[in-house]
Amino acid sequence: MSQRLDNFTKWLNQNDYSFAFLTEPKNVFYFTGFMCDPHERLLGLAVFQDGEPFLVCPNMEVSQAKQSGWPHLIIGYDDHEDPWKTIHSKMKERFTSPSMKAAIEMDTLPYARAQKLQQMFDHAQFFAAEPGVNQLRNIKDETELSSLRKAAELADFAISVGAGAIKKGKTEQALVAEIEYELKKRGCEGMSFATTVLTGDKTAAPHGHPSDRQIREGDFVLFDLGVIVDGYCSDITRTFAYKHISDEQQKIYDTVLKAEEAAIRAAKPGTEIGAVDRAARTLITEAGYGDYFTHRIGHGLGLGIHEAPSMSSNNTAQLETGMVFTIEPGIYVPSIGGVRIEDDIYLGENGAETLTNYPKTLQIID
Amino acid sequence: MSQRLDNFTKWLNQNDYSFAFLTEPKNVFYFTGFMCDPHERLLGLAVFQDGEPFLVCPNMEVSQAKQSGWPHLIIGYDDHEDPWKTIHSKMKERFTSPSMKAAIEMDTLPYARAQKLQQMFDHAQFFAAEPGVNQLRNIKDETELSSLRKAAELADFAISVGAGAIKKGKTEQALVAEIEYELKKRGCEGMSFATTVLTGDKTAAPHGHPSDRQIREGDFVLFDLGVIVDGYCSDITRTFAYKHISDEQQKIYDTVLKAEEAAIRAAKPGTEIGAVDRAARTLITEAGYGDYFTHRIGHGLGLGIHEAPSMSSNNTAQLETGMVFTIEPGIYVPSIGGVRIEDDIYLGENGAETLTNYPKTLQIID
Repeated sequence: MSQRLDNFTKWLNQNDYSFAFLTEPKNVFYFTGFMCDPHERLLGLAVFQDGEPFLVCPNMEVSQAKQSGWPHLIIGYDDHEDPWKTIHSKMKERFTSPSMKAAIEMDTLPYARAQKLQQMFDHAQFFAAEPGVNQLRNIKDETELSSLRKAAELADFAISVGAGAIKKGKTEQALVAEIEYELKKRGCEGMSFATTVLTGDKTAAPHGHPSDRQIREGDFVLFDLGVIVDGYCSDITRTFAYKHISDEQQKIYDTVLKAEEAAIRAAKPGTEIGAVDRAARTLITEAGYGDYFTHRIGHGLGLGIHEAPSMSSNNTAQLETGMVFTIEPGIYVPSIGGVRIEDDIYLGENGAETLTNYPKTLQIID
Repeated sequence: MSQRLDNFTKWLNQNDYSFAFLTEPKNVFYFTGFMCDPHERLLGLAVFQDGEPFLVCPNMEVSQAKQSGWPHLIIGYDDHEDPWKTIHSKMKERFTSPSMKAAIEMDTLPYARAQKLQQMFDHAQFFAAEPGVNQLRNIKDETELSSLRKAAELADFAISVGAGAIKKGKTEQALVAEIEYELKKRGCEGMSFATTVLTGDKTAAPHGHPSDRQIREGDFVLFDLGVIVDGYCSDITRTFAYKHISDEQQKIYDTVLKAEEAAIRAAKPGTEIGAVDRAARTLITEAGYGDYFTHRIGHGLGLGIHEAPSMSSNNTAQLETGMVFTIEPGIYVPSIGGVRIEDDIYLGENGAETLTNYPKTLQIID
């Protein structure tokens, strides 16, 4: 078995979990090398305390699963077939007692699928698989880090494309189109999420949508985007100004930048995660904008665009060497606008290294 | 309350369900008009047999929820807060007995969230909300149909862009970039899924990924894509040939086209859904390609790119007036290539109307 599966099996043994049944496509990819978006169809990976794991996927994906290098059993099924019958019989071959402890993805496994597992083993008790999966996924290896670096470089490039395309009258949607075109014609496998370009007072919505609003003088222009490389996501935000800027806009920008740098300095192996959020939040609050920083400081980054750890003020877990996450404070003032500055951070032996490196000094585009 | 919520409340009453708790973002949008991608954060809609419904969303989305026109209670929460505490107290205000029947989205509600609901009401029994939601979502109203028509028109346009860009040496990824650029600069709100362009023997994988493979003479070039308008998805597939084609390729194309037309003819109000699949499958099997049509004939289409009804051979439900779904037979022969032809179908009073209208006669691009 692969090192990753081996480590996960050890965790099953430590916790006396007889098996884990994983269905989150990114978790399945992490352990099998097989990337599959099954939509509503079942994709599943069964891993056992001992013995060979097996994969479940639609028949039309079986050849791709094999090409991905999965050397163990694959249970394929057609659209008119119920894969749970085969899973059931395979599981019954292994277990004679209906009483056991098993691990499932509590945060993503749909209730109906949990019921299917429960029906197999009347007296099974289910526990969260996430701690076992995430302790592995949280710590990036060299190969993962290399993909994350490439994804971050492309994110920097995307920002430079966006900045270069800012001009009077250009719509937010046109900027999205130009950025994605430059990336996709270079063969990028996808964007981490819907590319966001917001201008003017629309920047005050942390999750606004690009529209046909045109750039005007005095606008903030905010880009939030990411690129996928080998399945790994980057995530960057930069905020520019067009032509000129008010004193208050300048103060907001300076405050966010200082807060971002303070949070990056606070991020060290062993630091409590909440302290990273507070390092930025204290600074923003002292500048009078505490009520306008309406989200956590960041999130883990990897195969998932939002993955563990959650970088929120109430997370008492510690940062560990090998983690990758975003730092992204923002201040959003209705009718004035919003600024967010976001970098991807790799926590090495010596502290935080920024993977995204597009300059952060305020650029007023002329 | 809106007509849709009113209808859903009637369904709750008919089934004696005290409440429904919905978290699937598309279901929440359908009933509230509020479109939100909450990522891992909780978005929820509680609907009751009697009394006012309420919405749960992150605080930073509350203003957008209000702007969307939601007139009822909104429970907002910050990233460091647990929204379940407030939900719990709001629910306890309404219900004094822990014993009741309630509806949840069995196919999408994560197990951990179902547990949160279970903890509120020790003796609650949970039933699937999907039948109640889908009987409404399955039947498209005039507004929905209008959005679906626009989405289908843009899909036709996207195919024409792709066909116009086919030329020797062009990569699959470059074709994706050009198609999406033309759509996004016109302000399309998004693609229904990752635009797929496959060429040559890669067309034999029903779910292959665009790469840097270059178009060669004698290739099939397959486009599978969709566009989102007002949240509603289109989904089209067309297959072209470049320069010339073998007799077997021609036979495969002709067979798929005949099968697609036969399935469309079979789709009428009152028809058993499985019969639509079989109309195409029989024809493909008779032509000797039965083993190479490896998926169902189609899927429901609307806010979801794959939604109810599943158009598979074992679905014994009947088609109803107002349904929108895809018809998309394919034949995939390893080393020769694959052909799929897919249209979006609206089932009107008089039978099937194709919303996608790009020509289906084989075009050999020169």
